[in-house]
Amino acid sequence: MKLSEKVASMALSPIRKFAPIAKEREEQGVKIYYLNIGQPDIETPSCFVEAIQSFDEDVIEYANSQGLDPLVDAICDYFESYGMHYEKEDIMITNGGSEALSMVYNCILNPGDNILVPEPYYTNYDAFVAMTSGYIKPITTSPEEGYFFADAEKIEKCIDENTKAICLPAPGNPTGRTLSLDDIRVICEVAEKHDLWIIADEVYREFVYDGGEMTSFGMLPEFADRVVIVDSISKRYSSCGARIGFIVTKNKDMQEGLMKIAQGRLCVPTLEQIGATELFRLPKSYYDEVCAEYESRRDAAYAEISKIPGVVCQKPGGSFYLMAKLPVDNAEDFLLFMLHDFEDNGETVMFTPAEGFYATEGLGKEEIRIAYVLNAKDMARSAELIRLGIEAYNNRK
Amino acid sequence: MKLSEKVASMALSPIRKFAPIAKEREEQGVKIYYLNIGQPDIETPSCFVEAIQSFDEDVIEYANSQGLDPLVDAICDYFESYGMHYEKEDIMITNGGSEALSMVYNCILNPGDNILVPEPYYTNYDAFVAMTSGYIKPITTSPEEGYFFADAEKIEKCIDENTKAICLPAPGNPTGRTLSLDDIRVICEVAEKHDLWIIADEVYREFVYDGGEMTSFGMLPEFADRVVIVDSISKRYSSCGARIGFIVTKNKDMQEGLMKIAQGRLCVPTLEQIGATELFRLPKSYYDEVCAEYESRRDAAYAEISKIPGVVCQKPGGSFYLMAKLPVDNAEDFLLFMLHDFEDNGETVMFTPAEGFYATEGLGKEEIRIAYVLNAKDMARSAELIRLGIEAYNNRK
Repeated sequence: MKLSEKVASMALSPIRKFAPIAKEREEQGVKIYYLNIGQPDIETPSCFVEAIQSFDEDVIEYANSQGLDPLVDAICDYFESYGMHYEKEDIMITNGGSEALSMVYNCILNPGDNILVPEPYYTNYDAFVAMTSGYIKPITTSPEEGYFFADAEKIEKCIDENTKAICLPAPGNPTGRTLSLDDIRVICEVAEKHDLWIIADEVYREFVYDGGEMTSFGMLPEFADRVVIVDSISKRYSSCGARIGFIVTKNKDMQEGLMKIAQGRLCVPTLEQIGATELFRLPKSYYDEVCAEYESRRDAAYAEISKIPGVVCQKPGGSFYLMAKLPVDNAEDFLLFMLHDFEDNGETVMFTPAEGFYATEGLGKEEIRIAYVLNAKDMARSAELIRLGIEAYNNRK
Repeated sequence: MKLSEKVASMALSPIRKFAPIAKEREEQGVKIYYLNIGQPDIETPSCFVEAIQSFDEDVIEYANSQGLDPLVDAICDYFESYGMHYEKEDIMITNGGSEALSMVYNCILNPGDNILVPEPYYTNYDAFVAMTSGYIKPITTSPEEGYFFADAEKIEKCIDENTKAICLPAPGNPTGRTLSLDDIRVICEVAEKHDLWIIADEVYREFVYDGGEMTSFGMLPEFADRVVIVDSISKRYSSCGARIGFIVTKNKDMQEGLMKIAQGRLCVPTLEQIGATELFRLPKSYYDEVCAEYESRRDAAYAEISKIPGVVCQKPGGSFYLMAKLPVDNAEDFLLFMLHDFEDNGETVMFTPAEGFYATEGLGKEEIRIAYVLNAKDMARSAELIRLGIEAYNNRK
């Protein structure tokens, strides 16, 4: 009795290594600022829980496999408000962005096939691709270039005969990199030339700062047939634990493939869909408020991080992550130092070493990701702790 | 841009063929009794929604990947009450029994591997196995033998060098077949001899009638290391739309494999887990009441079905399905006749033709499945309509 090769080859989350150490330190009375996970502290809009609380059916029945009609309609209206037109059949509700990615990968990948993903990338992409017995080919980017990848030549040299798709988050996790409409066009043209699918992970769509334009792969209708947008309410409405995601595509084959998988797993929870419907009816001003809050957090963190001598960090334009290449020999060792040995006024900080976001061996050893999920004051203090920690780390022994 | 071979080869649910026809007939004023899906009309215990309604956190946060502690504890207590002892780490909460099956198959199957499943079987097993690029080898059973399969020789002759597991629902969907502890021992011994996993789908565990013993693959601790139980609250607590399932295993490799996949998809909805926790705290009398209700429905349906001259139908001992081999040439044609042409006092009935439950070509053409999800009076009337329909069908032209 063995496990399948794909599961045997997968890794457990590296977070597990650090969490017990942090917990132990907390028990010693040290305060830890957690910047390591994308769990925002922004309140979930109350309409979500209110809608669920007013549910008054006697039986919690299966929903239909595609998703509840009012939710699908509300999502169509949401896109329409941005000038993107989708029909009901273009939308598939999923168990979070996670199931959305997993379904799309299963629709596209045969064992041995690959998809291109700009690295550093969201670690869980690996898990979903591994489930198909396919693999990710990274498009390598660098902190010095602000993790830029929307370059035809850069992308094309990664394509081989087993490449089926380009998959990318925009705005980026972990990089915060945004894409202009011109960038999107470049990527679409490469995909068209090589007959690839585009899987656009747009869960941070509205999280664009400095007055930058909100963009989407849905804004270039001429490429619509190859575009599959993966989306979720988790970040947009600070409702990560609701696990409501969705897939948007006009490709009829993909729609049919998704429906086959969706029917197999029956449906997404009924109550969460009822709550999510109300979220999509929130006014645009909601996003403006949330964005302003995150922008102030980013600014607070960036102001401190950029003071670190030797740091490489371009101010990220979107999502709620900031990557920085630190003047340390090894970011994981540095984190262990921060958790085990460092404190300033009884406080230290936890972040994510970025090596795990790279598929290419040896890259990212000096980089970290911080999620700006705390308020601006705490973000400033956290970044200050990183700055002070680096001094202490590099002066130790 | 093509779809993956596995998804291209999958079929859309055959239910889709019949639903529009039924809808059209209803619009003509004919009443249709729906016995075709496993969606019970039993009320979901109110503690489920009440627990969710008392949720008062500001943020719907990610739950942990394994599942909320109180829910895991409540499930351990539930098993303890049946004399089965499980530790916290033996339980993994999933998005319904569907995700539970999908995770377990992904943990076990390499492309080209197979699992044995007694046929007729739950159609969606095919979808989950297809996702792994593996396949199902059927252990063929027959209505004449009451769909019995717990026979070492019968099982062993299906095993080949690519067989990784025996997977079976007990009590059965669609057959209603129950297993005695002796049956379970036979299956476990075969699995041990050939070093196979056992995947026991026990979502209907308590649904055992005629005073029969409730059994579980968790009741033979000597085989615990190869047993993986798939379970769900959907049927037990009439809460199909909550999508809370779970996996129970003492095998440490499997636990780690499941955790890798679970971390990839992050978590199961927080609110639904809070509701589910209360369901597991219901007193045993709840199951007795529900079972008595289903037993009376089964009796009502069986009494009518067994009156049909030439029918082959053994009274099913569990779950809430009844399979019958009817004296018709083709059960799908018969269903179409019932939906298009038949009525008795303005009423007709919808059921599931069973051919789709068989992997072996040509089997099941004369069989149907009915789900006893309506009250006893409606079940009796529905079965009467089937009986009258057969007369009319066989006398047509």
